[in-house]
Amino acid sequence: MRIAVDVMGGDHGSGVVINGVRLALQSLPQIHEILLVGDQGQIESALAAAGPRDRIRLVHASEVITMEDKPLDAVRRKKDCSMVRAMELVRDGKAGAAISLGNTGALVAAATVKLRRLAPVERAPIATVMPSVNGEFVLVDVGANHECRPIHLVQFAIMGAIYSRELLHHRQPRVGILSNGREETKGTELTRETLRLMRQLDLDCVGYVEGHDLFHGRADVVVTDGFTGNIVLKTCEGLSRAIFGVVRAELQANGWRKLGAALARGAFRDIKRRLDPEAYGGAPLLGLNGVVIKAHGGAREEAIMNAVRVATETLQQRINDAIVREVAAANLKLGFTKSTMDTSTPAVA
Amino acid sequence: MRIAVDVMGGDHGSGVVINGVRLALQSLPQIHEILLVGDQGQIESALAAAGPRDRIRLVHASEVITMEDKPLDAVRRKKDCSMVRAMELVRDGKAGAAISLGNTGALVAAATVKLRRLAPVERAPIATVMPSVNGEFVLVDVGANHECRPIHLVQFAIMGAIYSRELLHHRQPRVGILSNGREETKGTELTRETLRLMRQLDLDCVGYVEGHDLFHGRADVVVTDGFTGNIVLKTCEGLSRAIFGVVRAELQANGWRKLGAALARGAFRDIKRRLDPEAYGGAPLLGLNGVVIKAHGGAREEAIMNAVRVATETLQQRINDAIVREVAAANLKLGFTKSTMDTSTPAVA
Repeated sequence: MRIAVDVMGGDHGSGVVINGVRLALQSLPQIHEILLVGDQGQIESALAAAGPRDRIRLVHASEVITMEDKPLDAVRRKKDCSMVRAMELVRDGKAGAAISLGNTGALVAAATVKLRRLAPVERAPIATVMPSVNGEFVLVDVGANHECRPIHLVQFAIMGAIYSRELLHHRQPRVGILSNGREETKGTELTRETLRLMRQLDLDCVGYVEGHDLFHGRADVVVTDGFTGNIVLKTCEGLSRAIFGVVRAELQANGWRKLGAALARGAFRDIKRRLDPEAYGGAPLLGLNGVVIKAHGGAREEAIMNAVRVATETLQQRINDAIVREVAAANLKLGFTKSTMDTSTPAVA
Repeated sequence: MRIAVDVMGGDHGSGVVINGVRLALQSLPQIHEILLVGDQGQIESALAAAGPRDRIRLVHASEVITMEDKPLDAVRRKKDCSMVRAMELVRDGKAGAAISLGNTGALVAAATVKLRRLAPVERAPIATVMPSVNGEFVLVDVGANHECRPIHLVQFAIMGAIYSRELLHHRQPRVGILSNGREETKGTELTRETLRLMRQLDLDCVGYVEGHDLFHGRADVVVTDGFTGNIVLKTCEGLSRAIFGVVRAELQANGWRKLGAALARGAFRDIKRRLDPEAYGGAPLLGLNGVVIKAHGGAREEAIMNAVRVATETLQQRINDAIVREVAAANLKLGFTKSTMDTSTPAVA
């Protein structure tokens, strides 16, 4: 098993990414090799710093896609950028999976252009695992496809359920549609038609799920379009940061509070462990010929290690075989014929 | 100043609502009278229990709209329900404002049918004030209009800015559009056209705002369609409940933590004060002939008191005069002619 890691797009520099890769190699002996893709000079100096370099290979790429780049445009123009090179390693069979911390839109574009979608799949969504009070749930799509049709959400549900079953060990994942209320009269045309289609399939469909329900275990997989999903994901990140910021400030406001916080230190460590998004690491881009994992731009060593672990497990569980089989079966059951028009156009422009 | 309060639709019964009304009357001497609308027997027994009954009048209504009722249908069928009666008191000039804790969809329908929208306004949205790390912001629409056109969002922005200016004292509110990224290439057709229109007006428009930005003061007013806004609002409520639930459980897990939590008790009180949605109480339904405030179904005494305070301030600041003036001016500037087709149809079916 070989994994390509684009070391260039993160907020904390390539050294942090490379340290995360080394942690991953220590704990994941099933990986034969990790290909570090990026600027040779930067990678060499990070590798020189410390630690072993077995099972690591360097693949030079002279360009980088930045957060300011327009996704599809950048993918077409920057032919020797690390992100595109990482995708090509997967396309050419030199790696089974690729991981990148860079520009999400560009990653979706690069992955779709270079790897193409699996035959029965209409759109490749980004799935992310989020913590809840009693476990976790998969939210899909969190940003690859801003405007969706019902068949897209139905396919997201199937792919999300496969992910939940194979990687998170929910034997029969409960799938819900994110909406503005549980009642079936709520929602939009998109959610209502999605619900109607989902009820025709062998999914354990719990119907509509609202914001209140997300963190209280009502569904193991929640589907939504990439616009809403991205807003929800970032709102959750922003709100938890705000809450923990206020908690930290208030606990430092005087001596008694500081003493109290010191005594309860273990609680805060355990809260972080239960709710920390770092522990979840990588968000897979599902439905492509190859495994692609988006790591958070702000990912540090532990999150990188987790992204590598997610890539490894996704390969081991042969997620893509299940996706092809189950999405094709659903298309057949729904009488849906895959459109041939748009197979080569990525969703992000 | 007279305010009608529908005492029937809350999760904690009419007694809690009536106690909240009494608290409000104590702190708001400018209110002449509060009309309690609902079941006479229930109101009488709550009033008999304790406390003064000056400036309180009872208006009997024999029916109640429940959470299970279909909004528009219920408003048409249950002619003597407390929510509809409260709206009629406003329509007939017997009260300046109405407050209800009941079914949001039904409230939007009842308000739109009975009060009609202000002449230049296309859709009446629900605005809500949410806490941020350094103050608060207005999110609009959080649930009245699930599918919106750009002119609707533009009008929401104007109404939200008036609310922020007159009630929250932001002299020049910064207005943003909720989107999946700050770059103007992001968003949907709806957000892009809204942005283009907003830039033609005298609004302090900060462009797109993403989930990360909400709680960190990048905008004083954030506009979105009611589907997305409702999901964001409920996700925030669900996530904060989940986080504080985990914090509470972890702080009770052993003796040291309990001791620490006891020493830091003041911190948790101050955190609650800074982040508690109860402090914000009522969410106004903007753009109607009359003032309508939606209180949370789970509102307790303090939240009811705050909803009454919000109603009082909205009346005092003559918000509706400003809305008519400023929305009409914007329509003129954008060359937008109000459609006459749909003035009597509420957005919620």
